[in-house]
Amino acid sequence: MKQDELKKLVGEKSVEWIEDGMTVGLGTGSTVKFMVDALGRRVKSEGLNITAVTTSKATAKQAEELGITLKSVDAVDHIDLTIDGADEISNDFQGIKGGGAALLYEKIVATNSSQVMWIVDESKLVKNLGAFPLPVEVIPYGSQKVFERFEKQGYEPSFRKSADGNSLLLTDSENYIIDLHLHDILDPHRLADELIKEVGVVEHGLFLDMVNTVIVGRSNGPEILEANR
Amino acid sequence: MKQDELKKLVGEKSVEWIEDGMTVGLGTGSTVKFMVDALGRRVKSEGLNITAVTTSKATAKQAEELGITLKSVDAVDHIDLTIDGADEISNDFQGIKGGGAALLYEKIVATNSSQVMWIVDESKLVKNLGAFPLPVEVIPYGSQKVFERFEKQGYEPSFRKSADGNSLLLTDSENYIIDLHLHDILDPHRLADELIKEVGVVEHGLFLDMVNTVIVGRSNGPEILEANR
Repeated sequence: MKQDELKKLVGEKSVEWIEDGMTVGLGTGSTVKFMVDALGRRVKSEGLNITAVTTSKATAKQAEELGITLKSVDAVDHIDLTIDGADEISNDFQGIKGGGAALLYEKIVATNSSQVMWIVDESKLVKNLGAFPLPVEVIPYGSQKVFERFEKQGYEPSFRKSADGNSLLLTDSENYIIDLHLHDILDPHRLADELIKEVGVVEHGLFLDMVNTVIVGRSNGPEILEANR
Repeated sequence: MKQDELKKLVGEKSVEWIEDGMTVGLGTGSTVKFMVDALGRRVKSEGLNITAVTTSKATAKQAEELGITLKSVDAVDHIDLTIDGADEISNDFQGIKGGGAALLYEKIVATNSSQVMWIVDESKLVKNLGAFPLPVEVIPYGSQKVFERFEKQGYEPSFRKSADGNSLLLTDSENYIIDLHLHDILDPHRLADELIKEVGVVEHGLFLDMVNTVIVGRSNGPEILEANR
């Protein structure tokens, strides 16, 4: 199966966890897109009554067009389940997210969710994190100085460019993304601690001790992994 | 002497530390305003050649009108000295800043400065921090949830209102400020650690291990305190 078919497989599988009356967090990205499509079909065909909380302008637009009821994270009492993608998942269920530049709102929504599910094709499973560049969202003012400090630490930083390549990408919060090329992250907790304390850093793409369930798209079908938190 | 006279006293005293050729960080607030005025006079009368890095739109406007050369923190190689106010300074030289809502840029500029000087009237000196509300800059999305977590922790949070009182204050980075009423902060390092790790928090007003020199405005003249870092 091609990667896109695996993404579709897990996207469609994941909506089985969504029950009538739930408040559901919707992630961002190509795999989530399949999930939101499948959720839209359930809302239409079964009259499923759910409230969705989105993590990006892109997902909000898609969900709205499908007739899914949307609320801000601040307007809901709680979130029962958030379904999102991930760029890397280690064998102890730590993750890197932010390839789609929505890491800040994704982490805000995940932090406010009772259960978090990640849906990925099997290429996202790794032993240690770090082959995927780690996104760090930074305040534009002073970002060059943050970049220089990352450079000195050997983190091989690069500013994320906008889609047309002509300017720096702006997140939904109008910040920049610096991608760190770390290759192998041996102690993600220590790194997370260091990054979040860096003045000018808003958030980073290490999602630690956060996921409960992972659905992996494999050629022979979806595999369900439980993190037992 | 009245409080405003003490502020003027230290503002005017502090510019004696500024030398020709320096890159100087300019803070924000009512005491800094006197300092920038005095600096403007030195630039005019002595032809002092300095480059200034500002921490807010308000200070940038004032400095520009006085003919002071301005650059972004990202456009200078380094900052020799930053002069800023403070809302509270403890007897071990830790500070609370952000009463003027400019804490984020103030911390970014201070972090990139070789020397940091705070100028205050004597009412700002305290034994322990915490009588002054501690400002926390938060991402608007999810800020109600952050507020609720602060409430549960007994931090007596309140959202900062805009000047007209009709809406929430927006910082220069378009975030909200939540003020924490903590009364007595016994372990500022532990609190700083906890706050910065809270998802949705951009920065907080605890400025720890950061100041080198404090000029205190007293009725009998300015007192110079060295933090010996």
